[in-house]
Amino acid sequence: MIVLFGASGYVGSAIADRLRGDGLDFLAPSHRELDLTSREALTDWLVRIGKPEFAINAVGFTGRPNIDGTEVEKWHTLRANTVVPGVLAEVLGSEGIRWGHVSSGCIYNGCRPDGSGFTEEDEPEFAISDPRAGWYARTKWMAEKLISGLPGVLIWRLRIPFDACDNERNYLTKLMRYDRLLEVRNSISQLREFASVAVRSLRTGIPDGTYNATNPGSILTSEVAAALEKRGICRRRFDYFRGEQEFLSYPGRVFRASCVLDSSKLERCGVGMPDVHDSLDRTLRESNRA
Amino acid sequence: MIVLFGASGYVGSAIADRLRGDGLDFLAPSHRELDLTSREALTDWLVRIGKPEFAINAVGFTGRPNIDGTEVEKWHTLRANTVVPGVLAEVLGSEGIRWGHVSSGCIYNGCRPDGSGFTEEDEPEFAISDPRAGWYARTKWMAEKLISGLPGVLIWRLRIPFDACDNERNYLTKLMRYDRLLEVRNSISQLREFASVAVRSLRTGIPDGTYNATNPGSILTSEVAAALEKRGICRRRFDYFRGEQEFLSYPGRVFRASCVLDSSKLERCGVGMPDVHDSLDRTLRESNRA
Repeated sequence: MIVLFGASGYVGSAIADRLRGDGLDFLAPSHRELDLTSREALTDWLVRIGKPEFAINAVGFTGRPNIDGTEVEKWHTLRANTVVPGVLAEVLGSEGIRWGHVSSGCIYNGCRPDGSGFTEEDEPEFAISDPRAGWYARTKWMAEKLISGLPGVLIWRLRIPFDACDNERNYLTKLMRYDRLLEVRNSISQLREFASVAVRSLRTGIPDGTYNATNPGSILTSEVAAALEKRGICRRRFDYFRGEQEFLSYPGRVFRASCVLDSSKLERCGVGMPDVHDSLDRTLRESNRA
Repeated sequence: MIVLFGASGYVGSAIADRLRGDGLDFLAPSHRELDLTSREALTDWLVRIGKPEFAINAVGFTGRPNIDGTEVEKWHTLRANTVVPGVLAEVLGSEGIRWGHVSSGCIYNGCRPDGSGFTEEDEPEFAISDPRAGWYARTKWMAEKLISGLPGVLIWRLRIPFDACDNERNYLTKLMRYDRLLEVRNSISQLREFASVAVRSLRTGIPDGTYNATNPGSILTSEVAAALEKRGICRRRFDYFRGEQEFLSYPGRVFRASCVLDSSKLERCGVGMPDVHDSLDRTLRESNRA
């Protein structure tokens, strides 16, 4: 038996699909069935279901309608992004249950001085020393600090998920709905491929620790926009902000980090993801068929 | 009826003494009686006791044997310093119960460019943009962000409490036990006077919001040491670190902020504390009698 927390979310439902696709039995308790901010509730629930083979935490709050919402709903954001993994670490750790946590690359900004991506060894300076880091990045950073290095814990850093289905959390859907775009370079994660990494890394037993789970390489906003136009998925002409200052001049808008991550550690463990441009191309072809 | 949370701690017990001294009835549930990280537990408890006149939160974890311990016990620290005030804000807020929270000046470092103290209007840059800020400062900052500005909430920023009784949390006790001292300038809080501020500000109904609750002015480590020697409380000669670098060269030692705070807002509300030098002098005279 496997346990998946947060199965109703955008990331969680992709992981649920992956588990189903692999023919694996899993339990996915809803918020109502199980309050994951309560150690007692989780402990009691585990007594009822018995010890699972492994667990996956895809609980997280990224804001409504977007990340700016996490600045308003601070308490809810902290509970979902930091308290839940803290409770899981305490309870699953004491039961000796291996588990993985969906973290985020948003704790970094930019790239290394030489232009390469941040590795898992690099301190996420953005989240701890940049006053522009928002509440979301700080809660995700805190979660990593709470659980990284614990035995039996895997951390996968997702970054700007995208896939072939229309969804308000899908990067491609977002791009097509924005009035104007901001030109930035990012490493991004194909959602289905990320879900596959999560499941495979627990099944194949890669070493405990933190993994950047993005498609190798990086991509500019304008490259993604050009690919959307080229595939005929989006016929409108994209308009761009003159720069970050103009983007941030809208009220209530919080600074968005953009970053390049090095995902070679995951690759070295045999569960790497395809190159970002290849993955985007395949995803767009799939979108066209949908 | 008044409720005091965290009454067994160093700060909480001083507030309990103050309430007793004022002849006020209060309930002070222990950790075992009431898990303050649980919304359900707190809600049920309030149903049993009835609506209190006001509540005070003195729950907090400052590390064992000192602040360095908060880097090790991150989860416990987050629960005590951030989750508890988050739960209180949610539950007491929904019941319309006024309450006050013991925060900390440690979210600041140094002073304003002109040498004056930080006011409540100044952003605590240290906690959000200095990579040296430790876990403790970050959890206290997060708590302030969760609850500041909420109706019915008072925040008192305590800073380096001291009093006339021997206690491992008492600044004067600490100074006398350290092998070597670090020369820094700080605003500090006489514990009994702080406790009096907490109780009086809720009883007299000063406006909701955040208050620096330190004795007016600031003081150097060497001034405190000289006062201890002058009063004959400590007969040893104090030795000093050559500087911060030497202090921090000890393994596991986290950077300590030192800061000057402006406490005039509290004074303007009629619940100010005496000047820092006067207060220290009186406290040392009291120590001699003890």
